[in-house]
Amino acid sequence: MTIFDEATAVTRRAEGRYDAMLDARFALVVPGSATPPAINGGALLATVMRAVLAESPLPHPVATSAHFLRVGAIAPADVHVTWLRQGRTAATARAALSQDGKVVLDTTMTVGTVPGLDADAAAGHPADAAPGALTWTGLPPGFPPIGDCVDLGEWRGTTDTDGRSGYAAQVEMLMDPATTGWRRGEPSGLPEMRGYFQLRDRQDPDPYVLALALDGLPPVVFGLGATSWAPTVELTWHMRAVPCPGPLAVAARARHVSGGWFDEEAEVWDASGRLVAQSRQIARVGRGPRRGLANGSAQAGVDDATEASVPA
Amino acid sequence: MTIFDEATAVTRRAEGRYDAMLDARFALVVPGSATPPAINGGALLATVMRAVLAESPLPHPVATSAHFLRVGAIAPADVHVTWLRQGRTAATARAALSQDGKVVLDTTMTVGTVPGLDADAAAGHPADAAPGALTWTGLPPGFPPIGDCVDLGEWRGTTDTDGRSGYAAQVEMLMDPATTGWRRGEPSGLPEMRGYFQLRDRQDPDPYVLALALDGLPPVVFGLGATSWAPTVELTWHMRAVPCPGPLAVAARARHVSGGWFDEEAEVWDASGRLVAQSRQIARVGRGPRRGLANGSAQAGVDDATEASVPA
Repeated sequence: MTIFDEATAVTRRAEGRYDAMLDARFALVVPGSATPPAINGGALLATVMRAVLAESPLPHPVATSAHFLRVGAIAPADVHVTWLRQGRTAATARAALSQDGKVVLDTTMTVGTVPGLDADAAAGHPADAAPGALTWTGLPPGFPPIGDCVDLGEWRGTTDTDGRSGYAAQVEMLMDPATTGWRRGEPSGLPEMRGYFQLRDRQDPDPYVLALALDGLPPVVFGLGATSWAPTVELTWHMRAVPCPGPLAVAARARHVSGGWFDEEAEVWDASGRLVAQSRQIARVGRGPRRGLANGSAQAGVDDATEASVPA
Repeated sequence: MTIFDEATAVTRRAEGRYDAMLDARFALVVPGSATPPAINGGALLATVMRAVLAESPLPHPVATSAHFLRVGAIAPADVHVTWLRQGRTAATARAALSQDGKVVLDTTMTVGTVPGLDADAAAGHPADAAPGALTWTGLPPGFPPIGDCVDLGEWRGTTDTDGRSGYAAQVEMLMDPATTGWRRGEPSGLPEMRGYFQLRDRQDPDPYVLALALDGLPPVVFGLGATSWAPTVELTWHMRAVPCPGPLAVAARARHVSGGWFDEEAEVWDASGRLVAQSRQIARVGRGPRRGLANGSAQAGVDDATEASVPA
């Protein structure tokens, strides 16, 4: 069992009822902050997905909508699954993860079957090779060669107060250098992040790893100089194909930032160049320090010292 | 009260319980099909939204996730709303629309406040003019002038069996001619639709009209020659700003089609050129007749005569 599998495991207690233990290894910690460590949203999502898929008549999480209501704490949690419909090509369940009787993450999942891997995977889309199947894929975002990327490393804010390593010690992110100017106080002026994502223990990607990767890169508003905590309010993702082993290429961008809200839409491509997952989230722009933009295209930011930057 | 307001109205029966009557004026009918008329998904969504917003402490549907489980029939329905959390900047409710005790549409909505209109709306993003507010918007899709667009008219399949007019008699769609080749059997080969959308009675856009417009154009896979019924399985949308009066410009595209699934992501821009709403849905590729592509870039389709084309 991998670290991620272990950290997001669920145990069946009764029909539709599961126990989980939210794990410090996927927590984010802000040093010097009064804010308690928060479990990474992707890890929360994976925990809920495990409970739903444990009972699912169909193998893949085709559409998962998740509303993040409260911060997940390093503590026990329970997941409650209710099936709304079970059909031949799709089935839908509601599932909520709660702590102390309060909903942390509320999800609705529609499960189904997406194209799988087979010997011809590298040649295209094997499950679509059935006569008459319609296939089409847009152009991939421009990813630089992995060797040209910048390793984000284990940034500060990812080690728990008791010295245990948190989220960034579990994942490796090799970023497109065009999207890392914010690290030296020179944000690009574009709300975009691109990079390669994998677990440091080299776990092969599966639906749970996809859920982690989709929201795994730094928030796209870092590219606008807003490098503080940017909590996800809602995230919906679609699994489009079974990923092959190897690093995942993740591209995320925003289309609109205003009123304290920003969207972030991400695509995940597997090592064979196949589009395997898509997401869009809406999140709050953090109120932490905002740095000037290299190209000066965004307005100056507020400075609220009570909320610290997460990565730096 | 407008036709659309009337057709999607709800009546409070008890706390969190609402009655609705799904209205033939927003039904789709397939002539000669054994399939009973289906209520348009956007009209279903608007009905549920009315029940949630009737009780909401905050004005705007910032994030609405909707899973479509069954076809909505021209018949009474009830909506059940349960609040999961009410916070200062966001509140979240689950709401389900059911008929005969079976869930037709299951939603989760997070409400909040997005930038509104004011006298300076045309100048940009007034609600963001507060000192320190971060604003950024990507380039709009290319919309042709409205005068150059093709009126889809009241296509066949939109008049109820008793002669009452359905969905297409209520809405006006003026389409970018580059996305209408499928009407003459010459699909463009690109899964894209662009057009101007408004209610024929010229109702001003509001959050409910946005929900209708987002999924209001023909499915993007019509551009690949798959011009049959393409049922939405899940749709999530984000309201980003209050729309000004006037026609809405809607641009939709797919990124990936395979295994019988396609995504459709839409943006809605208001008449002042402001991005007011975004959505992504996952839907099934219809099994109806599939026409050849003008550029021959998609595979030939299956032909299942039991499912008729919707528009033509």
